[in-house]
Amino acid sequence: MLTIHDSLSFAENDFDITAYGEVLLDMISREEAPLKECVNFTRYFGGSPANVLVNMQRLENRTAFISRIGKDEFGEYLTEILENEGINLDCMQYDQEEGTPIIFVNKSKETPSWLAYRGADINLQISDSIYNKINNSSIFFTGSFILSKNPARSTAIKAIEYAIKKDKFFAFDPSFRANLWPEGSKGSKIIRELIAQADVIKPSLDDAYHLYGQDHPENYIKKYHNDGAKIVILSLGKDGVILSDGSNKALHIPVFSEKVIDVTGAGDSFWAGFLTGILKGLPVKESARLGNAVAAFKIQGVGALSSVPPLREIISFYDIQPIEGGNFNE
Amino acid sequence: MLTIHDSLSFAENDFDITAYGEVLLDMISREEAPLKECVNFTRYFGGSPANVLVNMQRLENRTAFISRIGKDEFGEYLTEILENEGINLDCMQYDQEEGTPIIFVNKSKETPSWLAYRGADINLQISDSIYNKINNSSIFFTGSFILSKNPARSTAIKAIEYAIKKDKFFAFDPSFRANLWPEGSKGSKIIRELIAQADVIKPSLDDAYHLYGQDHPENYIKKYHNDGAKIVILSLGKDGVILSDGSNKALHIPVFSEKVIDVTGAGDSFWAGFLTGILKGLPVKESARLGNAVAAFKIQGVGALSSVPPLREIISFYDIQPIEGGNFNE
Repeated sequence: MLTIHDSLSFAENDFDITAYGEVLLDMISREEAPLKECVNFTRYFGGSPANVLVNMQRLENRTAFISRIGKDEFGEYLTEILENEGINLDCMQYDQEEGTPIIFVNKSKETPSWLAYRGADINLQISDSIYNKINNSSIFFTGSFILSKNPARSTAIKAIEYAIKKDKFFAFDPSFRANLWPEGSKGSKIIRELIAQADVIKPSLDDAYHLYGQDHPENYIKKYHNDGAKIVILSLGKDGVILSDGSNKALHIPVFSEKVIDVTGAGDSFWAGFLTGILKGLPVKESARLGNAVAAFKIQGVGALSSVPPLREIISFYDIQPIEGGNFNE
Repeated sequence: MLTIHDSLSFAENDFDITAYGEVLLDMISREEAPLKECVNFTRYFGGSPANVLVNMQRLENRTAFISRIGKDEFGEYLTEILENEGINLDCMQYDQEEGTPIIFVNKSKETPSWLAYRGADINLQISDSIYNKINNSSIFFTGSFILSKNPARSTAIKAIEYAIKKDKFFAFDPSFRANLWPEGSKGSKIIRELIAQADVIKPSLDDAYHLYGQDHPENYIKKYHNDGAKIVILSLGKDGVILSDGSNKALHIPVFSEKVIDVTGAGDSFWAGFLTGILKGLPVKESARLGNAVAAFKIQGVGALSSVPPLREIISFYDIQPIEGGNFNE
């Protein structure tokens, strides 16, 4: 069983990570008001798995994306960004009938409200090239948005089963929101089954609340382990993260930056730093510190994809410690 | 057979007009650029049948709307506008799963490009209250956007068949665009069948091009009559309209205003003026002049719903002539 003190090594693969999920337009209001009163919106590149991959590319990993967007002008805009970042798009699907998904979000100091316009993403189909890509990657990553509707859900489950069979490191972001699922709160059953299969999950307090109801962070962590989770990284927002393997004492890691400009995409940049650490052979707990370090740079800039400095600078600035076998100098 | 010199009279009904179709958000770019490069968008009230009804309410008609939107914040915004205008919403349906439809349009000096995000509108279901509303109205109106997908299409066809059976005046806006129809260009067959059933159609030159290919206005009018159209009002944009009943010499009516600020929704305001004239017992050709008069006020203001003056002022300003039996002074 993987503990927070352990590190992993991977066989040679063509890709460090393959992610499955959505890339979409975030349409964010300019007004701070309820959505029904918002008049002006600005378009941003969005989708958590896409943000994770962009950040991982910038941290010098080799990434591949499995996703589906509309064969339309919004899809062209997103594709150009993914291409320019160097993400492999062999498994990108383009839908002739359904459009590129969009999420409308209101600017808000509290939890923003949102409306999702699903489309092509829901039609993601399994293919041999998806299996090949997973087989040629060290890590397989998926979020939860893409699981809420079929056929994308059943495609995801086939991809996850294959990744597990091939003994890939499976990273899962368990963010359940009943209103996205046709079966409502019953959809949580599928999320909990995947929690049990993942090597690592990174829920937020809000995610935990939507799955288990109101409770304390320590109890949330117990509940995730009871559901079968191995490594749990519970994100506490401005209070950092709690890291737990269910046997050793859980570790609290505070945020690294006091300066906060914009927290959009902070979780995605944490994932990118954490998984980069895992790939580099850092112990799990030091990988989580690298996650915090990348997130710290992110929240000091504006936008989900604000600039990520070279990995070497991040490591040196926040004093991330490789253990013997860590290969920062490769 | 109704000619352009005839006028109609209607039995007493609770409503002057019931319209079937979409109400939606128009998201219009602030940049004049291809859609994929547009960053900022502004939200407007949209949907041709909804615009027709708002204009008809302002011209003192009693209107009812059959439509379906999402049970969401965008739907609330649209509902409040319709309510404030005084449109009867007994037949408004609210979808629990699908969202309020949205159309993204780029600002453009040429023909703008657009992307439609359909949703609740497609799920419009037939009901007894729809039949009742049609039965209690003098005019039944529908556009073509709502016909492109089922079940809304088959609901529309049931509603139209019922309106014809009940001898209602059926006004149809035949605006076919193959890319909205799952069956592509084959969808035009349904549009042409409805053209044969309508008492009046008002295509634009662009609509005619999409149905019949490149041709001259005179030939377009012949083709519509060959397809079975009765009264044809071919809109020529800045060159006004051509009015034809297929037997008398077609009549060209130039636009009434040289000042043009914004043509958005000009066609919908023409419909409102024209149908108001028909309801008031004006001859068809004078109703078309009233349509032009309302459109003239519209294009001198900004937005699809710029202010419509009281009917009496429009009539007097553009010297619309009632014949004996016209009842402007009621």
